[in-house]
Amino acid sequence: MAVGNIPFPTMPVLEGVRLGSAMAGIKKAGQRDLVVVELPEASSMAGVFTRNAFCAAPVQVAKEHLAACREQQQAPRYWLINTGNANAGTGAQGLADARESCRALAHAVGVPEHKVLPFSTGVIGEPLPMQALLAGIAPALSACDSQSVAWEQAAEGILTTDTRIKGASVEVPVGDSHITINGFAKGSGMIRPDMATMLGFVVTDAAVEQSLLERLLRDAVDRSFNCITVDSDTSTNDACLLAATGRGAAVTSAADIGALASGLEKVLVALAQAIIRDGEGATKFVTLDVSGATTRQEALGVAFTVAHSPLVKTALYASDANWGRILAAVGRSPVADFDVERVTIDLDEVRLVENGGRAPGYTEAAGSAVMAREEITIRIDLGRGDDGATVWTSDLSHEYVSINADYRS
Amino acid sequence: MAVGNIPFPTMPVLEGVRLGSAMAGIKKAGQRDLVVVELPEASSMAGVFTRNAFCAAPVQVAKEHLAACREQQQAPRYWLINTGNANAGTGAQGLADARESCRALAHAVGVPEHKVLPFSTGVIGEPLPMQALLAGIAPALSACDSQSVAWEQAAEGILTTDTRIKGASVEVPVGDSHITINGFAKGSGMIRPDMATMLGFVVTDAAVEQSLLERLLRDAVDRSFNCITVDSDTSTNDACLLAATGRGAAVTSAADIGALASGLEKVLVALAQAIIRDGEGATKFVTLDVSGATTRQEALGVAFTVAHSPLVKTALYASDANWGRILAAVGRSPVADFDVERVTIDLDEVRLVENGGRAPGYTEAAGSAVMAREEITIRIDLGRGDDGATVWTSDLSHEYVSINADYRS
Repeated sequence: MAVGNIPFPTMPVLEGVRLGSAMAGIKKAGQRDLVVVELPEASSMAGVFTRNAFCAAPVQVAKEHLAACREQQQAPRYWLINTGNANAGTGAQGLADARESCRALAHAVGVPEHKVLPFSTGVIGEPLPMQALLAGIAPALSACDSQSVAWEQAAEGILTTDTRIKGASVEVPVGDSHITINGFAKGSGMIRPDMATMLGFVVTDAAVEQSLLERLLRDAVDRSFNCITVDSDTSTNDACLLAATGRGAAVTSAADIGALASGLEKVLVALAQAIIRDGEGATKFVTLDVSGATTRQEALGVAFTVAHSPLVKTALYASDANWGRILAAVGRSPVADFDVERVTIDLDEVRLVENGGRAPGYTEAAGSAVMAREEITIRIDLGRGDDGATVWTSDLSHEYVSINADYRS
Repeated sequence: MAVGNIPFPTMPVLEGVRLGSAMAGIKKAGQRDLVVVELPEASSMAGVFTRNAFCAAPVQVAKEHLAACREQQQAPRYWLINTGNANAGTGAQGLADARESCRALAHAVGVPEHKVLPFSTGVIGEPLPMQALLAGIAPALSACDSQSVAWEQAAEGILTTDTRIKGASVEVPVGDSHITINGFAKGSGMIRPDMATMLGFVVTDAAVEQSLLERLLRDAVDRSFNCITVDSDTSTNDACLLAATGRGAAVTSAADIGALASGLEKVLVALAQAIIRDGEGATKFVTLDVSGATTRQEALGVAFTVAHSPLVKTALYASDANWGRILAAVGRSPVADFDVERVTIDLDEVRLVENGGRAPGYTEAAGSAVMAREEITIRIDLGRGDDGATVWTSDLSHEYVSINADYRS
């Protein structure tokens, strides 16, 4: 199942950027599971990673290598990504395996080891199948290409329970010229990113100074990947990387920085929404739009409480306008001195709740008509301030249980 | 589905306590849905209620009436409980209906209105069917009786999606005599009590001073109903009441207070566990035992994060020893400066995790053998302090989705 039909876009060529993938046998035979992304010299790069305390070995190594490059005022040249195994909960052996993977690719292309960042996704707690992974590096390298199909195959080569490849691309005018931002991502379950989701890879040809790039990525992630949830479970492997090759226009003026920030947010929101549309077992795409909060944090607290409620999610699955469950979830949200008399709740154009109870004009027929839709916005106005937040989520279906009860079998 | 086979106990008669129930047609025809509990003069009483900001009309009225009685140093004489309708999210009409219900019963038995406490459970947001409710009061009153079967029928008359009646009784030695504590409860879904679960009713014949009774109830609820979760959703109607009739032995010495506290905790833990065993769609009864925490709050944070994880719950349902999901949930728990190297995780007698990864002696066969059990303890030692907490939960099954997708249809 997946909601809506969002095709993979044609990805413009980014000079100096090549992607190659292979079927290394880490996942199942005949499935793309190993990806190499090559970036040009003199790129800048920013990354955000999971805050899960049990963060995976590749996340630890990627952060180390990124820091080592930054000290030398350089950026990594390669991303090495495998699916089929998360290399998380694997202790000292996992760290050794992640380092050895980087070393093997670094040796093959003639760069220092710290210029390779490793990423893994898949089942947690199994040792990384090193023989298959190492043997896959050469074919992935020889498949490297800059055309759109290479992006598409790379997007395919990082999927786990995803049913679709996920990509986004925008062009942003900068001065007399324009820059391009291409990104791809994976994610379907264990999705409640707390920094970014496992995994997002974004490249632009803009020339952007390192610290600015970091700030732009953090801000965009906070309004995209950090605003989605499928099942409230934060992955051990979440990571989102952004590289700027510098081959295109330089971004320095306030106006251009604003344009880049907005383009970047567009790409990340599109990828984040694609993850929700392809959420495990998803039959609905739900936007939670909370306003009237005293702070953005408060609005996010309400939005995530509703988005995580199994009772709200099963009502959405059943297309049942059981709005009492939304009210109950709002009521248990972390809001201090909550005056529920001021709260209004709307499903698309239908007012559900006001003055602490059901809105006078509400009819079951009107509620059911909205709930039958595949895409629904739940608007919650807390009536106590001027801040707000938007969060995207999916429903809880039989298929979600089946997928996660059968994942390893 | 329900886990284990816990029969309803024989309830000793408590002098002056009578229970009556009726089939009033609030729920479906032919189902017990209205209960009256009569308590003797000179009882003392304590209550704890939901913290959901959208708390139901009967909860508001019950708190008001309890406070009014307390001002007069008296206790309420009647509990009036209906299932089939929660009278929550019903605004001003809901409040008026709750008051009118109390008034009708008060008039029939000749006590002031504030000596009746109202309780409702069922669907949220529908108006209370007053005609049926009011007509049911007379038959419920005339059925009032003190024998065990009356307790059993009262326990039946408050069920919603529960598949079983839930009761517990203990006798506690006090001085040369003993006291009795009888309790019954309901609850199956929307279970993550935050004060108590909807609904628990406990009566003892002990003579206990009012403020002591309140403290005893709060403490026992904190270690029973507040330690269970089916689906993380806190009800709008949660309430747990404890009445002490004073017809039995007086509890005043420190030793007797300790004995009463321990007996009360036993009754509430038994009822709380019965709710989990009968959790919506439950096929497993899971104990989360967190130790080595710096505070009880920290231990509860870890226990509830694991207990709420849909991925852990579906793995439990599948009897899949996918321990990486437990590790990932522990890793995203609200613990400051979390050193995961010191964490150990055990499934019953099998060590899963130590030193940040899979325990060396672990085998899939051993893990699977434990996961196949109907009752499982997950032990998490954080290795950073001396505090701990125990939480009980159920799994996430297809049946849970079915029950909640079909609840109103």
